[in-house]
Amino acid sequence: MNRKLDFYFFVGSTYSYLSVARAGALAAARGVQLVWCPFSVRTLMREQNNSPFVGKPAKFAYMWRDLERRARRFGIPFDGAPPYPIDALEQANHVATLAAGEGWCEPFVREAYRSWFVDKLDPGSPQVLRGILQRLGRPADDIERAGHDDVRNNYTARTDRARALGIFGSPTWVCEDGEIFWGDDRLEDAIEWCLAGAG
Amino acid sequence: MNRKLDFYFFVGSTYSYLSVARAGALAAARGVQLVWCPFSVRTLMREQNNSPFVGKPAKFAYMWRDLERRARRFGIPFDGAPPYPIDALEQANHVATLAAGEGWCEPFVREAYRSWFVDKLDPGSPQVLRGILQRLGRPADDIERAGHDDVRNNYTARTDRARALGIFGSPTWVCEDGEIFWGDDRLEDAIEWCLAGAG
Repeated sequence: MNRKLDFYFFVGSTYSYLSVARAGALAAARGVQLVWCPFSVRTLMREQNNSPFVGKPAKFAYMWRDLERRARRFGIPFDGAPPYPIDALEQANHVATLAAGEGWCEPFVREAYRSWFVDKLDPGSPQVLRGILQRLGRPADDIERAGHDDVRNNYTARTDRARALGIFGSPTWVCEDGEIFWGDDRLEDAIEWCLAGAG
Repeated sequence: MNRKLDFYFFVGSTYSYLSVARAGALAAARGVQLVWCPFSVRTLMREQNNSPFVGKPAKFAYMWRDLERRARRFGIPFDGAPPYPIDALEQANHVATLAAGEGWCEPFVREAYRSWFVDKLDPGSPQVLRGILQRLGRPADDIERAGHDDVRNNYTARTDRARALGIFGSPTWVCEDGEIFWGDDRLEDAIEWCLAGAG
């Protein structure tokens, strides 16, 4: 049976762009089953008084430069910083939660990040969101369905689980034994940990 | 002529423990000249409203676990979290600044970190500091000399240079072309950048 690796992410996290682009193929190549877990890192950051970039221009500027260097290394498009922050109402994350329950999370999130980083649009705005779903051949009522209580409750429940696991940022990789790794630059370590079954 | 890599660090930064232990050998093996640059990251963090761990228990706990995993990988001793924060008066950093001007920075800082992480002592306390210097065969008046204006001014000047370079954390690697890399986990990237002479 395949090892499982939970991929906790938030559409709106900058470094998660790299993870969304490369985690699926990397995990598959190592025989690891990647589980897409959208959660509200914004809620946890607010609770934990953890604002990585607000009021921190030096760190913010460095982040974009570092992200650019790493995108180049991985062959992922990066042509200047996209709008930030995005998805004020977390609607793209609600759609991702709906999609995670129905097996189309990866293509949705990849397309949402493409809209954000390549087209420089906010994937949380209703118009952009509609375009993303249309390109994926999804029915028009996905946005409405993503607003239903059961989806909201799933999103909140997964955020609660993230808090209990000690998560504070996105992306975070959670191994089956509960070991967590934070950051796109820990993806390879997380996969190795999963495969070693260490703990 | 050898490429140069400036190693900006603060005795009191947790992840810099890994860098202090491994950067010298790694740079030397690649023919890169490592320049030890103690600076007051605390001053910059205060200015930039950037407290990585204060009031952030989840992130703080993760940092120690991540540091432990990485120390194990590199064969660097780690047996539980040492006291934190340390060096309230930045005296160990003043001595490091004196040492950097006289060519004995690396042995001093390695021994200061050993005291901190292995003996679980604050290398900034006068008594511990005296012991460190004694073990290194340094004269007793180093501590007094480290308090002189010229050393303080050097420390302030290097902190000013760090601010101007866009530095916000420790360790930070600065290449000759001004490219900066933050974090022990970017040391290899920084060395590659130096050698490529890219920019």
